[in-house]
Amino acid sequence: MDKAMILKQVSEMWAKVPFNNLLGIYITKFDHQETEVRFKWQDKLVGNHVQNILHGGVTATALDFAGGVVAAANIIENIEELDMDKLSLNLSKLGTIDLRTDFLRPGRGEEFITTARIIRSGSKVAVARMEMHNEKGEHIAFGTGTYMVG
Amino acid sequence: MDKAMILKQVSEMWAKVPFNNLLGIYITKFDHQETEVRFKWQDKLVGNHVQNILHGGVTATALDFAGGVVAAANIIENIEELDMDKLSLNLSKLGTIDLRTDFLRPGRGEEFITTARIIRSGSKVAVARMEMHNEKGEHIAFGTGTYMVG
Amino acid sequence: MDKAMILKQVSEMWAKVPFNNLLGIYITKFDHQETEVRFKWQDKLVGNHVQNILHGGVTATALDFAGGVVAAANIIENIEELDMDKLSLNLSKLGTIDLRTDFLRPGRGEEFITTARIIRSGSKVAVARMEMHNEKGEHIAFGTGTYMVG
Amino acid sequence: MDKAMILKQVSEMWAKVPFNNLLGIYITKFDHQETEVRFKWQDKLVGNHVQNILHGGVTATALDFAGGVVAAANIIENIEELDMDKLSLNLSKLGTIDLRTDFLRPGRGEEFITTARIIRSGSKVAVARMEMHNEKGEHIAFGTGTYMVG
Repeated sequence: MDKAMILKQVSEMWAKVPFNNLLGIYITKFDHQETEVRFKWQDKLVGNHVQNILHGGVTATALDFAGGVVAAANIIENIEELDMDKLSLNLSKLGTIDLRTDFLRPGRGEEFITTARIIRSGSKVAVARMEMHNEKGEHIAFGTGTYMVG
Repeated sequence: MDKAMILKQVSEMWAKVPFNNLLGIYITKFDHQETEVRFKWQDKLVGNHVQNILHGGVTATALDFAGGVVAAANIIENIEELDMDKLSLNLSKLGTIDLRTDFLRPGRGEEFITTARIIRSGSKVAVARMEMHNEKGEHIAFGTGTYMVG
Repeated sequence: MDKAMILKQVSEMWAKVPFNNLLGIYITKFDHQETEVRFKWQDKLVGNHVQNILHGGVTATALDFAGGVVAAANIIENIEELDMDKLSLNLSKLGTIDLRTDFLRPGRGEEFITTARIIRSGSKVAVARMEMHNEKGEHIAFGTGTYMVG
Repeated sequence: MDKAMILKQVSEMWAKVPFNNLLGIYITKFDHQETEVRFKWQDKLVGNHVQNILHGGVTATALDFAGGVVAAANIIENIEELDMDKLSLNLSKLGTIDLRTDFLRPGRGEEFITTARIIRSGSKVAVARMEMHNEKGEHIAFGTGTYMVG
């Protein structure tokens, strides 16, 4: 199996994760250099119904997911042999150690696009920086996450 | 209206916030010294269906909410006159500036209890520390949040 | 007095701050859009004498300083009248609320250049992102700081 | 060699680290459950000479050091055989991945006491929480640090 197929399979698997499915969040770019995840506005994601803005937890979820995806892309990129069992084992170890979310603007928009890039790469720990914008390009949040990758 | 009634009203309002409602998270202690929020396990909150554990975004949501609640309790505690209009205005300014989440153990359990305490109090900014445990007392996550309060 | 003179005065004042002076750190660019501070390697700044690398606290100091400088530049930029007394009062309120430091590579080099940009601007709180590189352009650290500005 | 002797040696080694020596910071409790480091006020550590308070970088240095010390104590505690070469190798891998500092009160006092405890322990990564108080017991700062330990 080649890397493209693996990325496709992992991508489909993640869209089915219950809480991702609930938010309607899915991977739109899955590359070890940059990943992107997207979700659309839904009224059930509101955290402040006076101001009608996203719950901060939704924003944190999107940032954490985007960072995890880019960390996974790096695990896949760096694996020597494309053995699905070994890969599954490595991906099962993937976990967030800590996450910082910086809320910049109220979460308003029709669609929310979150990108992630690795800033520290290692065999055990990876650190990623994330950004969330809406469809107008307004910058809603920044994130920094530290992930266990091995 | 006295403070107890206000806390009750604000509490009920927050349980109806769509994303809180989706998680089934609600306030169980609302005091300026310590607040507590709780939610029960639901399959839709899963972030890793191989390991069957909560999504990290659910944990971040609970921590952010608990911190926001204790920040609100401090706004209510420090308000001089219990004027609902003035209070609503102040509460509408409440917002998370940044949030750090430290994931300690996999999110497993039947119920999740998150407590929050203010560590820095001011007229403009408050900082809170949060802890999430499950019903067995296992410590699942720590959080630190900085909130705009005025 | 014009803004250029004020920036020059504030810059000189900050270079004399005892702990900045001890590190030999000073402002090389002071603008509300981006600021830069620099310091040179000194053996006394070592935190690990086996590996001969900077102490993590030195890196955190440089990041915090750069972020504070860009927050100050924004206070100066946004002040309506250039009244030195009012400005001094505003600058005296400047303080770091929280700071996240991400250590990317060991702190080695001859000179360390730290830049900062505002990512959230407000009348009370500002959030800045910082980056530290050495003279070869190697990326040593990232930082995110939340500052009280009013 | 027994653990007590090792702790004593590591302690003495760390007091000689140039930047620790510059701050006059040293270990006063070195245990895998809790560590403590102390330093006294010195005029050269000032970051704001109008208000005469510690530089935020000094506070971050003390928090980072205390967290690193408790992470080291855990490496020593968990090592199976007390082989100095193996221990040195493990300790040389110790490094801060990220550090959050929460500044609670201005850094004033005669002596500053920083304690640290492990909140997440693992063979590769450890997370510690730190607190800095002055000699009157006033709480000056909180910290959370993620450390590479293997």
